[in-house]
Amino acid sequence: MESTNPIPGTPVVLDSALRESIRPAAATLPESGIMEVVNYGWHRPDLTRLWVGESDQPTPAFICDAAISALRAGHTFYTYQRGIPQLRDSLADYHHRADDVALDVERIIVTTSGMQGMMETMQALVGAGDETVVVSPVWPNIFAAIHMQQALPVPVPLQARSGRWHLDLDRLFDACGPKTRALYINTPNNPTGWVMDRDEMIAVRDFARKHGLWIVADEVYNRFVYDRPRTTSFLELMGDDEQVIVTHTFSKNWAMTGWRVGWLVIPRGLGQVFENLVQYNTSGTAGFLQYGCIAALEQGEAFLASMIERCRIGRDIACDALASLPNVELNRPQGAFYLFLRVEGEDDSVALAKRLVDEANVGLAPGSAFGDGGEGYVRLCYAASHQTLKVGIERLCHALRGESATVRVAG
Amino acid sequence: MESTNPIPGTPVVLDSALRESIRPAAATLPESGIMEVVNYGWHRPDLTRLWVGESDQPTPAFICDAAISALRAGHTFYTYQRGIPQLRDSLADYHHRADDVALDVERIIVTTSGMQGMMETMQALVGAGDETVVVSPVWPNIFAAIHMQQALPVPVPLQARSGRWHLDLDRLFDACGPKTRALYINTPNNPTGWVMDRDEMIAVRDFARKHGLWIVADEVYNRFVYDRPRTTSFLELMGDDEQVIVTHTFSKNWAMTGWRVGWLVIPRGLGQVFENLVQYNTSGTAGFLQYGCIAALEQGEAFLASMIERCRIGRDIACDALASLPNVELNRPQGAFYLFLRVEGEDDSVALAKRLVDEANVGLAPGSAFGDGGEGYVRLCYAASHQTLKVGIERLCHALRGESATVRVAG
Repeated sequence: MESTNPIPGTPVVLDSALRESIRPAAATLPESGIMEVVNYGWHRPDLTRLWVGESDQPTPAFICDAAISALRAGHTFYTYQRGIPQLRDSLADYHHRADDVALDVERIIVTTSGMQGMMETMQALVGAGDETVVVSPVWPNIFAAIHMQQALPVPVPLQARSGRWHLDLDRLFDACGPKTRALYINTPNNPTGWVMDRDEMIAVRDFARKHGLWIVADEVYNRFVYDRPRTTSFLELMGDDEQVIVTHTFSKNWAMTGWRVGWLVIPRGLGQVFENLVQYNTSGTAGFLQYGCIAALEQGEAFLASMIERCRIGRDIACDALASLPNVELNRPQGAFYLFLRVEGEDDSVALAKRLVDEANVGLAPGSAFGDGGEGYVRLCYAASHQTLKVGIERLCHALRGESATVRVAG
Repeated sequence: MESTNPIPGTPVVLDSALRESIRPAAATLPESGIMEVVNYGWHRPDLTRLWVGESDQPTPAFICDAAISALRAGHTFYTYQRGIPQLRDSLADYHHRADDVALDVERIIVTTSGMQGMMETMQALVGAGDETVVVSPVWPNIFAAIHMQQALPVPVPLQARSGRWHLDLDRLFDACGPKTRALYINTPNNPTGWVMDRDEMIAVRDFARKHGLWIVADEVYNRFVYDRPRTTSFLELMGDDEQVIVTHTFSKNWAMTGWRVGWLVIPRGLGQVFENLVQYNTSGTAGFLQYGCIAALEQGEAFLASMIERCRIGRDIACDALASLPNVELNRPQGAFYLFLRVEGEDDSVALAKRLVDEANVGLAPGSAFGDGGEGYVRLCYAASHQTLKVGIERLCHALRGESATVRVAG
């Protein structure tokens, strides 16, 4: 009998014959808790949508143009499973610029989305009965990727303390037992905006080394930091044959959420294992899209800088207005592009998020979707244009003050 | 301890520390046996490449143009996990035209490649210790998709008999035991060209109904049939709430191998389960690519007809020439676009395929890559342009006659 451990999200209702006909691990896979609210509010006219992790800016034209040229040039055949060599070279250069690390290109694997990279990582590391300790709250999909291997996610929640999010390292280490194979850390963190400090990363690295554990570092938001010049990557702290895998995506830096391309940095020597995982999961990423990705890396620094600046200002717009409300509690995010806030007296985040759809005409994501430590909060993405963001924040402020926001702001 | 059952392909060599640090199911995942020969011959100048399953024709411009318009129009955001509604509607219309079935659009799930659809299907149906009976030889990736669920593929080989491929139904049914959850049938078949007859399909359906088994039908090549007006789909034979999943791809019909888009037809009622599997595997398929897929479906019948005709003639070119050799044994393919042939005295297909790279300057796929019943054969893809195909066939004929093909034909 397979494990059917609960993971965050909305259980799927199936009639009993269907439920019995499929695999328990699939039948118990919940719908993303974010989607429960998205579905609730989807058809609402004029809703301000701050619920998913993307800006309202389409992909820049220079990136689209590069993919279009490649498509017109006939790059429409099967291609390298690990990604085209030019893109892998560009990624190595990018890590040199962004993280100050010289990566062997053999460590880079292009994936069909950041999500697929996470899935392949979990397929490579954990099997039935294994445990992965996960710093939570976090994007819920990682729980599902662990669950699908019949492994167990063990969440260790961040704590809000003195106006910032905090990870209790002793608690993290205590959560690791004989079945633990990996630590999953997303820094900068979605949904809280927590950024792990360098000395904490070193302590985790040393603990993982001592106990033979893998570190899976989701560093998707590592360019989006606001209170320091840049963040540290686990790649800087660990050698090229150590047990660390870093997951990345093109989605956030270059407004490419709809492209579904990501990449992994893996230890030297595991290239063939990951090539095989790519082969048997997706058989590779569209070659012509990869030319767009090269343009993003090689010509996209100015765009990325403008995105980070947009988010920095967006963070201030959101935090300043909402922190002024007496019934709102929030920690100013240090990174990523989300604000995770709680409203006094509101313990059911799905109910609150649905109420805010109805009463504020604003779509937020419920904190319960992000696992342990998330319930009672709602997540707001502040990557939208400032105009949209200001409308949404004003609506939220009215509603949370108990005024009728939709009437006052809709005009 | 996880199962490490062997599946076809080339074992990966890992140093022992790396091997022990990762999951056994991943460490034992072999490299595709096709790739062993592709890697061997990759840099060979002027090689005639008939080893992988694609033509040498790029995607038609009208398909590219539709994707380009969507990309320029800003369809670059997260989109529907099940596929955009317009594409799902187009797919329902397509099945009505191609298979004469009226499908509820809720049964259609767009996937990031046909391969990913197969992976999601196996994730949905089988878990640790379950068995899937697989008609072989077959595209080896299905074995890996089963293996990654810690389930066991049980191959039942086709047999060459009186000039055609034949499935022994008694043997198929005898292979099903108490742990069997699904039957995997690829018809028309890659690599043999076997096409399952309608009465055989009915017998399998009745057996599956009686024993509560799933039928997973890979009907990717179902438009490529040469000795009958059209082939039967399991969708015609089974109701919309029965245990059947049909896997498809845009790759073969419309020369879109490099796009990585496929689709599934699933039973009514399982939509949310598959939406969740999409969410947690890839989080969906690029929206702008899906507009290209709509163009393929709605404007691509003439192109597809020309592809089928090209393959019909290609089949004759390949079969007529090779059948004339005294040491070659082949069955004329009834469908798909491959010829599976054996050479007298050659029992090691990898060695033969490598020798044909060296001596004929032609790249073929080794039969051993396709699982039980494949060793001793090599697979030739006849979807290439007739000019390329004729060069390749002439080279093969010279080499198999023991003449020096590369010298005689290269000029």
